[in-house]
Amino acid sequence: MIDKWRIEENVFSEKTSGKHEALMTLGNGYMGIRAGFEEEYAGQKRGFFIAGTYNRAGLNEVAELPNAADITAFEIIIDNERFSLLKGKIHEYNFTLDMKTGELKRELVWENTGNKKFKMIFRRFVSLENRHLVCSKVSIEALDEDSNVKIKTGVDGRQTNSGVQHFHEMEKRVYDDKFIQYVQRTTESNIDMYLNTFLHINPVLEKSFTIERRKLLAEITGVIRKKEILEIEKISLVYTSVDKEFINKDINIGEYSLDKIRELKDSRYNELFHSSSESWNNFWEKSEINIESSDEFDNFAVNFSLYHMQIMTPFHDNRFSVGAKGLTGEGYKGHVFWDTEIFMLPFFLYTNPETAKQLLEYRYGNLDEARKKAASKNCRGALFPWESAFDGKEETPEFAAINIKTGKANRVWSAEKEIHIVADIAYAVIEYFHVTGDTEFMKSAGLEILAECSEFWVSRAEIDSKTGKYVIKDVIGPDEYTEHIDNNTYTNYMAEYTVSETAKLLESFENKKDKIYLKLAEKLGLEEKIPLFRDFAANIYLPEPAETGIIPQDDTFLSKKIIDISRYADSDSKQGILKDYTRDEVVDMQVLKQADLVMFLYFFKDKFDKDIIRKNWNYYESKTIHDSSLSMAIHAITALYFGEKETAYKCFQKACLIDLGPNPHSSDDGIHAASLGAVWLTCIKGFGGISENGGMLNIEPVLPDNWEKLEFPLVFRKKAFRIKIDKKSVELFSESNDILEIFINKQKYELKDYLRVLY
Amino acid sequence: MIDKWRIEENVFSEKTSGKHEALMTLGNGYMGIRAGFEEEYAGQKRGFFIAGTYNRAGLNEVAELPNAADITAFEIIIDNERFSLLKGKIHEYNFTLDMKTGELKRELVWENTGNKKFKMIFRRFVSLENRHLVCSKVSIEALDEDSNVKIKTGVDGRQTNSGVQHFHEMEKRVYDDKFIQYVQRTTESNIDMYLNTFLHINPVLEKSFTIERRKLLAEITGVIRKKEILEIEKISLVYTSVDKEFINKDINIGEYSLDKIRELKDSRYNELFHSSSESWNNFWEKSEINIESSDEFDNFAVNFSLYHMQIMTPFHDNRFSVGAKGLTGEGYKGHVFWDTEIFMLPFFLYTNPETAKQLLEYRYGNLDEARKKAASKNCRGALFPWESAFDGKEETPEFAAINIKTGKANRVWSAEKEIHIVADIAYAVIEYFHVTGDTEFMKSAGLEILAECSEFWVSRAEIDSKTGKYVIKDVIGPDEYTEHIDNNTYTNYMAEYTVSETAKLLESFENKKDKIYLKLAEKLGLEEKIPLFRDFAANIYLPEPAETGIIPQDDTFLSKKIIDISRYADSDSKQGILKDYTRDEVVDMQVLKQADLVMFLYFFKDKFDKDIIRKNWNYYESKTIHDSSLSMAIHAITALYFGEKETAYKCFQKACLIDLGPNPHSSDDGIHAASLGAVWLTCIKGFGGISENGGMLNIEPVLPDNWEKLEFPLVFRKKAFRIKIDKKSVELFSESNDILEIFINKQKYELKDYLRVLY
Repeated sequence: MIDKWRIEENVFSEKTSGKHEALMTLGNGYMGIRAGFEEEYAGQKRGFFIAGTYNRAGLNEVAELPNAADITAFEIIIDNERFSLLKGKIHEYNFTLDMKTGELKRELVWENTGNKKFKMIFRRFVSLENRHLVCSKVSIEALDEDSNVKIKTGVDGRQTNSGVQHFHEMEKRVYDDKFIQYVQRTTESNIDMYLNTFLHINPVLEKSFTIERRKLLAEITGVIRKKEILEIEKISLVYTSVDKEFINKDINIGEYSLDKIRELKDSRYNELFHSSSESWNNFWEKSEINIESSDEFDNFAVNFSLYHMQIMTPFHDNRFSVGAKGLTGEGYKGHVFWDTEIFMLPFFLYTNPETAKQLLEYRYGNLDEARKKAASKNCRGALFPWESAFDGKEETPEFAAINIKTGKANRVWSAEKEIHIVADIAYAVIEYFHVTGDTEFMKSAGLEILAECSEFWVSRAEIDSKTGKYVIKDVIGPDEYTEHIDNNTYTNYMAEYTVSETAKLLESFENKKDKIYLKLAEKLGLEEKIPLFRDFAANIYLPEPAETGIIPQDDTFLSKKIIDISRYADSDSKQGILKDYTRDEVVDMQVLKQADLVMFLYFFKDKFDKDIIRKNWNYYESKTIHDSSLSMAIHAITALYFGEKETAYKCFQKACLIDLGPNPHSSDDGIHAASLGAVWLTCIKGFGGISENGGMLNIEPVLPDNWEKLEFPLVFRKKAFRIKIDKKSVELFSESNDILEIFINKQKYELKDYLRVLY
Repeated sequence: MIDKWRIEENVFSEKTSGKHEALMTLGNGYMGIRAGFEEEYAGQKRGFFIAGTYNRAGLNEVAELPNAADITAFEIIIDNERFSLLKGKIHEYNFTLDMKTGELKRELVWENTGNKKFKMIFRRFVSLENRHLVCSKVSIEALDEDSNVKIKTGVDGRQTNSGVQHFHEMEKRVYDDKFIQYVQRTTESNIDMYLNTFLHINPVLEKSFTIERRKLLAEITGVIRKKEILEIEKISLVYTSVDKEFINKDINIGEYSLDKIRELKDSRYNELFHSSSESWNNFWEKSEINIESSDEFDNFAVNFSLYHMQIMTPFHDNRFSVGAKGLTGEGYKGHVFWDTEIFMLPFFLYTNPETAKQLLEYRYGNLDEARKKAASKNCRGALFPWESAFDGKEETPEFAAINIKTGKANRVWSAEKEIHIVADIAYAVIEYFHVTGDTEFMKSAGLEILAECSEFWVSRAEIDSKTGKYVIKDVIGPDEYTEHIDNNTYTNYMAEYTVSETAKLLESFENKKDKIYLKLAEKLGLEEKIPLFRDFAANIYLPEPAETGIIPQDDTFLSKKIIDISRYADSDSKQGILKDYTRDEVVDMQVLKQADLVMFLYFFKDKFDKDIIRKNWNYYESKTIHDSSLSMAIHAITALYFGEKETAYKCFQKACLIDLGPNPHSSDDGIHAASLGAVWLTCIKGFGGISENGGMLNIEPVLPDNWEKLEFPLVFRKKAFRIKIDKKSVELFSESNDILEIFINKQKYELKDYLRVLY
């Protein structure tokens, strides 16, 4: 029986530690704390990541999110024996993340090697109400006899990113015989982190403080009487010198944060947790999806996606964006990819558009760096980095993991060639405007992004001397197993879309003669540019289906060798094909890592009939290994375009298993953020049939057979409403009286407070 | 029953891991590898230190010996379960370091949680024959059923010094599908380390290589048949860019070390171990002490001392010296103190004088830095650093561990004030010359050290306006609980000894009119200096016993407050007094951390009669907490000066327990090198009664009641011989026919090949 709100383990196992640490991460967009156990185990990977605190550790390292000092560990010694579940016996065990409230809880009965039993409860949350706050509570009950305990907890600055230390140790102090303050500074970016913590201990035991290199711990010693419960609450506040509230302010953060923790001196776990869970409640009210499915797992997986989208997204600060692993692990070093705009942003756009705007503002804030990158490639406009961190500089490592035999590292061409990211960001800006109608954002940021992206395409393309068409040569499309190709269909169409929509939008703003717009137009020389954009959009080469109906992925793809990929596509081990073939060999085959032409179909389905979509889907899917987590959900959605709702459902379920599947190591380095966004996409844009067309909302739902009902909230053009879809009807409920025109199954309706449409 | 060659554990316990890791360290002076288990445990502290590879990690850190990439770990997975002795059942267990051969061996029978039993043997040695070589051998026998195994081992560069990462990761490669090469570079000193390793696997199983961040591992997969033994031998070679053989040579160390490991491709564990154990045999022949005691522990403790002296001392390279923890832990960061010259060097001087010479050459190599330090304090001559590392710069941290409550760090004054190190080094040079008669060394290095040390004293002392005597103000003596004092008796006498002996030696060399000497004399202006030295020696203030017979430790000590220290002196927790009193308060009490006036008696006993020595010993010992490991053995030796051989024996046994006692954490940060040297001193200079007087050997033995016999080798004035002492006689055996004049119990004898003297 699956509880759709609970990620649970009922058996203790070391093997799954990497998985539960990532999946059960707590967070609030400001910070993420992996669900490492309080007690230490070999192979455990604690992780504590704070958004935007990137640091470059030194030679041969790119900037990454550093693993901050640990505040979650408790060393528990009972009767002179270190508590570890590898020893003694476990009589009861439950480890749960409650996604509804954001609390992690472990309850167990442990019998030590001296045959004494103890009931232990470990609780922990990261506050969604106060983003700096982390609380833990440890309860130990001696079930059989009085027992000696010694418990150590505090701040441990020995954490590294897989052996890479990002911090200098600065001050460590105890104030008022109570409050620990530990300060560390990143080695290159000079970001200070202030970790403040204190304990409530009940009943009162002897407490002292011990100091070691990079550690400052409180040590609690005493006796727990039989049937007595020892409770230790640990309340911690974390601040950094890049926190928004300190920008351009002359604040001593050490003193400030000490004042803040002193203010909490009488606060208790339960009340602080209550405040945080209220914030979680607000979130779910705005975002919850209800699925009535014969398989409870579906709704659980969707909740899991939404939970993680919420904890990974720095909605407090538009200088940061979402890393490919959120704040759940070291994978991809906290870097921001196209994943954010294409896979995650829509969730926010349709539920919490303010956050979507902030994510786009992150790109706007880094527009100058993108301009510099374009210039460095002899282009105009803006070329956004393939991997972005604090300041929008290109952070993609130049070389991938080396071939351990040849010692040669594979050159990573993404930073140079995977330029579709420019169109992806532009697409998100356009979609944002269509869905919100936010002209203020467009004038202050959106139009400038669009104009610079379009300018990039115009300057990057060249004119083919034979056809007179604009062509885009030597790129990598979404499929990263195909490199250095010309006229990638996805890229060319997305470029065309960017440039033509930009031209359209600019003209519509021009017509309004708005002062801010005119200033921008002058700054960017738009008057001269719009005709160039028009020309580009009209004359770019857009590949068409061949006689067979197959649309070429690029100029040469269809002429490459075809191999049987079944042994790789069904494999648990990612990138297994690279053990049999060199990367160069794979590039010369019709083998896809992930959706590419299918990704193109996702955006441009309206240009083709069902039959063409089906043919291409089948052709390309059979050549796709799905070695990227971005692949399966897009296949799900696009299968719906030719009516294959059960294929779509299967793909959806596979997409849900990317993190939630049985492979114990799938998520060791962190969850797959884009894939979680894509689960939302599959539900809402796929089965829910939500799309927008130039600012109009369309609903064309197709529920899989397993599903009786799908219900979700939506915000469109500032109007918030709920949608209930079942096998017979679509119902819409709104508390506002504004009128919104909607197309449901291509029929136009007006939504005020209620609307029901039968199929 | 104690085996005097074996450090053994017969019960597996996590609690002792810090202790056995340090005590059972393997090494050869070039490198030291802590005895961490092959399989990982929480709280384990692997350590791999290579002499001389100091690095400064960054802000707020002093130079230290970095923890190199690990080559000892084996992750063993049997039937999909990670092997850990915390799980399942242990049926047999023995973990032994054989000090005779330098091999670490663990034999056990483990029953996994699936009730299948496995016999496992883990062997490991660091070669004493080829200092770059480390070998391991893992044997697994499936006792009950066929079993699946997966074993991962290779090089793991994630090691840190308590969270401080000292290395950049450089290249990692596999050559010939066999040899792993992992290269890392220290972050500041730019020292490259090359770790090369490969495996022999029998029977042949499937092998592949996996790469992770800072890791390169071989992965062995397959089935062990019932009753079959899987054997994996791992042969590793370690080189660094500061290795002596590469100095000023244009050698590609990566290629060089790869060639070297390729040469070993057919070598096997047993034969390589045989070569190393032969070198150990040679060592023991030159150094072994035989004690017939009613307590076997005595001889075991002495072997333990000698074993560690051998593995901690870089006898291959005179650019390095011995750290206060040898190569067994992070404690004192690998820094060199006076410990080396006063506590450890005599062992080498009397058994292997070539090594003693090299240790002095280390100081000579850093004489210029010592001159600079003296100049920076407005003195002339040489002021050696209190803590020394690679280049002889002062490495003492300016502040000690902070007071966590006030946030104020205690200023460490040792670098400024503990100037007795200048006399300690000079003392060792003089002793070296007396014992060896090595005039070449004196001309090339020794005299220059002495002249510069003497020059320092002359410049550092001032003339007291009342008495007209030289006085030495504001110093710290050996007792570090007493700071900023004038005329520390130990310091003043040692200064006098340095300067007067220097003058004497210089004059004796002057008389020979040797060309090299004359050049040196000109360089240093000795003609003018010798009279100054004479004047200083004649006129320095040397405190005398007061009417009570007590010699003051310094000008003010005897006027300070006396407290009862019994609760601190008997305590296991070091520096417990600092929990009750501030450091400043302790400075104002008659409380000693360690031998100071008693240390003075150790060197100058001949100046006082037994009664005075007894009185002072009793007075000061009752005020000494022995919070330093340098204290107890010196008390043992000096108790013999007034005939208290049983007190001496008790002190000796306590000194032996500093590392070997029951406290499981005494040696977590490494063994106590000086205390181990002092165990040798107590045996040979104490009970054996060995001393030298201006180049003449004296033997005045006093065996404790428990001992029937004491037998040891000695080298004096190039003549090697063995000494057997029992309750009735002293016997000497030599294989050379050179004649050596010896005083035994103040009678003069001539030793040729044999001599026996009855008491």
